[in-house]
Amino acid sequence: MGGDHGPTEIVPAAVQALRDNPDLQLILVGREAELRPLLAQHASGHTGRVEIRDAPEVVEMHESPSAALRIKKTSSMRVAIDLVKEGAAQACVSAGNTGALMAMARYVLKMLPGVDRPAICTTMPGIHGQTHLLDLGANVISDSEQLFQFAVMGSELTSAVNNVAAPSVALLNVGAEEIKGNDMVKQAAVLLSNSHLNYVGFVEGNDIYTGKVDVIVCDGFTGNIALKASEGVAEFISYHAKAEFEKSLYGRTAALISMPILRAIRRKIDPRRYNGATLLGLRGIVVKSHGSADRISFAHAIEEAIAEVQKNVPDRIAARLETLLIPEPAP
Amino acid sequence: MGGDHGPTEIVPAAVQALRDNPDLQLILVGREAELRPLLAQHASGHTGRVEIRDAPEVVEMHESPSAALRIKKTSSMRVAIDLVKEGAAQACVSAGNTGALMAMARYVLKMLPGVDRPAICTTMPGIHGQTHLLDLGANVISDSEQLFQFAVMGSELTSAVNNVAAPSVALLNVGAEEIKGNDMVKQAAVLLSNSHLNYVGFVEGNDIYTGKVDVIVCDGFTGNIALKASEGVAEFISYHAKAEFEKSLYGRTAALISMPILRAIRRKIDPRRYNGATLLGLRGIVVKSHGSADRISFAHAIEEAIAEVQKNVPDRIAARLETLLIPEPAP
Repeated sequence: MGGDHGPTEIVPAAVQALRDNPDLQLILVGREAELRPLLAQHASGHTGRVEIRDAPEVVEMHESPSAALRIKKTSSMRVAIDLVKEGAAQACVSAGNTGALMAMARYVLKMLPGVDRPAICTTMPGIHGQTHLLDLGANVISDSEQLFQFAVMGSELTSAVNNVAAPSVALLNVGAEEIKGNDMVKQAAVLLSNSHLNYVGFVEGNDIYTGKVDVIVCDGFTGNIALKASEGVAEFISYHAKAEFEKSLYGRTAALISMPILRAIRRKIDPRRYNGATLLGLRGIVVKSHGSADRISFAHAIEEAIAEVQKNVPDRIAARLETLLIPEPAP
Repeated sequence: MGGDHGPTEIVPAAVQALRDNPDLQLILVGREAELRPLLAQHASGHTGRVEIRDAPEVVEMHESPSAALRIKKTSSMRVAIDLVKEGAAQACVSAGNTGALMAMARYVLKMLPGVDRPAICTTMPGIHGQTHLLDLGANVISDSEQLFQFAVMGSELTSAVNNVAAPSVALLNVGAEEIKGNDMVKQAAVLLSNSHLNYVGFVEGNDIYTGKVDVIVCDGFTGNIALKASEGVAEFISYHAKAEFEKSLYGRTAALISMPILRAIRRKIDPRRYNGATLLGLRGIVVKSHGSADRISFAHAIEEAIAEVQKNVPDRIAARLETLLIPEPAP
């Protein structure tokens, strides 16, 4: 069990998920000696639906994906993915090393037919609604064909999980006009315009947070930086808000009086509610939690996995992709 | 005079700049019939240091740069750049169409020797200090050599304007480890490691707002999206803060009591203080204001231009680049 906090946050998150979902069954994968007492401490009456699978090794956060894949065959991450492969689990949720999780998931589960590369996709909160954004860093380069595949996957995910009939899909670009952007996005725009998807054109970075489209597609380099920059701004604002309220007695009093409002604002913009990025394109469900996730946050990642299992997302993506595969011409 | 508000905000900003800088002389370029009454309304005693140059045409915000360059020869934008070329002005500040400004500035002023492409650079506020970020969208693709040139220009700008002896320079990437990223950033890292610059390695998107390095370099596609995504997050947070404080009588009362604190927070995070992106790499100083700039914001863009004139930024960049140009081998 990885992430910055490990089992001390993940076990209570798991117990919370069991409490919220009466049909849920969980397998906790990690060091049994650590997990057993934590589970005894937090679980109260849900132990019948949870089992522990001992996995002695841990993939470290800065370990190289290829080394982790080669060496860490009894790591919690690998064992959890193997359980999905064997059909013993329907999904895997991890807060560990993203690169290693990707590499192991691709190696063990394999890609869906018609998908070149997986994509990391998450829900972004917006003023007028939520948006699925992908890729967030599964790939450092992509071509237009791959962006097109990301669009198909993001559309199918939104359609399944959010019950949207024809999700609006946009490409992230440096301007909304058709003449803007690099060749990669321009060519992807042509592919999308000629597809069955509800493609609505280019959007700019700020539209990630307006919620005006259901799905925004970008390459993983750009997506990762946009997401991390967003985290940076939020921390910057939060830092100054805290500092100003704490600076004087007047400020501390105002903060006390405003506490219910400040808490309500925090709830509305809380990134923990959106934790749980899914690795799309695999023959199985793998959800990546933020490494720094606490129990509330990690419980949301489990909910994301549950929703995808219920809606059978990989099969839906596979079915959709099958309709797009162009048959080889007869010899 | 362009931008969303045009002369109604730019003229008062100009008058404010004249007030704050006793040696400043300004030429207002635009429709004289519009500018003259506005100037009479706002200027009080500074009219000796301001003149009006009539320019009947306006480059529209969504006009194509090539069309604007070809056709709009008496636009305010073109006339202002021509004034810099002729030496009648030492800098040009515009809130107009970025692409057109870039195209005209390159065509009229030309690039410095050793610079392939201009870069848009701005100051980003951070928790522990400011950072110059470039490129913000002058280019939609860049190679490693161009990223290297951006680093040289950003370093020289910071050194000149912020009086930093050896500014720390980093490359924006999807991870801080050396193995991360695409070929472009990896190759740029090699060039920077072998240079005289104070290159400190890769940083991630959130580091744009920590202020831990002086200069962050990225390609214009990524930089533009990071910047716009940041604007989106800030608007998202501000939207919810406003909504929660306004929702109830209790909230409105709490807001009244907290007003001095909320104002102080706003001052700290106010993007207007950082308005004024410079177009680096040109044989002249051209500063781009945000299109939506109000008078306070636009006045900051004028201050940026003044600082660059005082420190002679283009000459300093040219001198630094000259030391880097490898002489052709003798035949």
